[in-house]
Amino acid sequence: MRNICMTVSYDGTAYHGFQTQPSNNTIQDILERAIRSLTGETIKITSSGRTDAGVHARCQVINFITSSPIPLVRWCLALNTLLPADIIVSNARQVDDNFHSRRSADCKTYRYTIRCGKHPDLFRRNQEYFHPTPLNTEAMQSSLPCLVGEHDFTSFCSIRSTKKSNVRTIYAVSLECEPMDPILQSYGIHIHVTGNGFLYNMVRIIVGTLIQIGEGKRSADAMSEILAIRDRALAGPTAMPHGLMLWEVLYDNDEISS
Amino acid sequence: MRNICMTVSYDGTAYHGFQTQPSNNTIQDILERAIRSLTGETIKITSSGRTDAGVHARCQVINFITSSPIPLVRWCLALNTLLPADIIVSNARQVDDNFHSRRSADCKTYRYTIRCGKHPDLFRRNQEYFHPTPLNTEAMQSSLPCLVGEHDFTSFCSIRSTKKSNVRTIYAVSLECEPMDPILQSYGIHIHVTGNGFLYNMVRIIVGTLIQIGEGKRSADAMSEILAIRDRALAGPTAMPHGLMLWEVLYDNDEISS
Repeated sequence: MRNICMTVSYDGTAYHGFQTQPSNNTIQDILERAIRSLTGETIKITSSGRTDAGVHARCQVINFITSSPIPLVRWCLALNTLLPADIIVSNARQVDDNFHSRRSADCKTYRYTIRCGKHPDLFRRNQEYFHPTPLNTEAMQSSLPCLVGEHDFTSFCSIRSTKKSNVRTIYAVSLECEPMDPILQSYGIHIHVTGNGFLYNMVRIIVGTLIQIGEGKRSADAMSEILAIRDRALAGPTAMPHGLMLWEVLYDNDEISS
Repeated sequence: MRNICMTVSYDGTAYHGFQTQPSNNTIQDILERAIRSLTGETIKITSSGRTDAGVHARCQVINFITSSPIPLVRWCLALNTLLPADIIVSNARQVDDNFHSRRSADCKTYRYTIRCGKHPDLFRRNQEYFHPTPLNTEAMQSSLPCLVGEHDFTSFCSIRSTKKSNVRTIYAVSLECEPMDPILQSYGIHIHVTGNGFLYNMVRIIVGTLIQIGEGKRSADAMSEILAIRDRALAGPTAMPHGLMLWEVLYDNDEISS
């Protein structure tokens, strides 16, 4: 038996999220079916964390236990042949028996992209949330540092969450603007959030609040006030899923999963 | 009556090319239907040139004659509301009565993108031709300068072309490599070709030949030999359409259409 770990990239547009559902139209369902076709085994894969319907992954990490004798170097090519064009596996490696994609993860980074301006970029329309009116990116930027550190993120957690503790640590948050595209008269705003774990909808609620700050509906100070008050009802709306991408997952011992 | 000119971007994946066809599923058909819905007029639009099925445009230019009183500033917003998400119009402006998107054009630039390496970029899978084995980009680069200038491009023209003369002028050709993506272990190769006009499939046949040079199936000198011999049968295959994008159209008097 081997514990095999892989990097998975997916365009989440066509799927009902990562985790298995009765619809069978999730990334996990598709991956498990492909592994079954390849090996004849019915296995359960573990991921670094679920992503919601419409959310993408540049670099999700999965692992699973297999008794298949297929050599490591063959796994990716063989699985990619069985997978649809919007899911790609790469970098198969054997890991310790006790490696667990989620529990062993040191930190995860999500990226959220807003396109702000006159026209969306149609080639990235499924990966960018389009905002047609100007945003105050300076106010947005200045609202972010308060999120760094260990905090109770109840205000930025879906009320449907079933987690016992809402305390998480954010290591870094950044906001970066692309140059204005002269044809589209719009530019991309990338928000990267790195933490030791994320609550249900946490990045999307932070971004929904951030957009309200950018719109001038709230002051830049609102972020820290909302954080302190621990009440989901006071934060902004949950931002649309398609702007979100699981960007990177890092593991202990500086082992970079990607 | 006004002659109105617009920039059009489209993702050609879902369409049967630019030019009207009985299928009605072309960019021109969709644009003319949207204009009819908006104005009640049945108009014919002119473009800077047709693009084949699957080919994209960052910046196509169209014009049409209309008697609609809709103010210029309203056209784009109104049309974009009626257009699907994979077609966007921008930058509506009134032009001289004798302006013609194709005949008035000074030069056009096409970009072809090859992704070379282990894995495709799934977020650009419809805009990049994926080549899984290495390409000799130095040989490819050194084969390009011979194309610049006024030449008879019969070798790089589909035999289905009905043009009288195959003489065209190429002003510039360049090949540019993106840095290697560490996760995908692949990189994008962008080929830009600027000319005063293009024959049917011309860029795609040049790129098909270029790929054979990159694969080592032909020497870098082959490009000039094929050009000189004026025989389509001696050039490489027509490269897949989805890697091609109409990049820019420039007009006389330094009037940049985009």
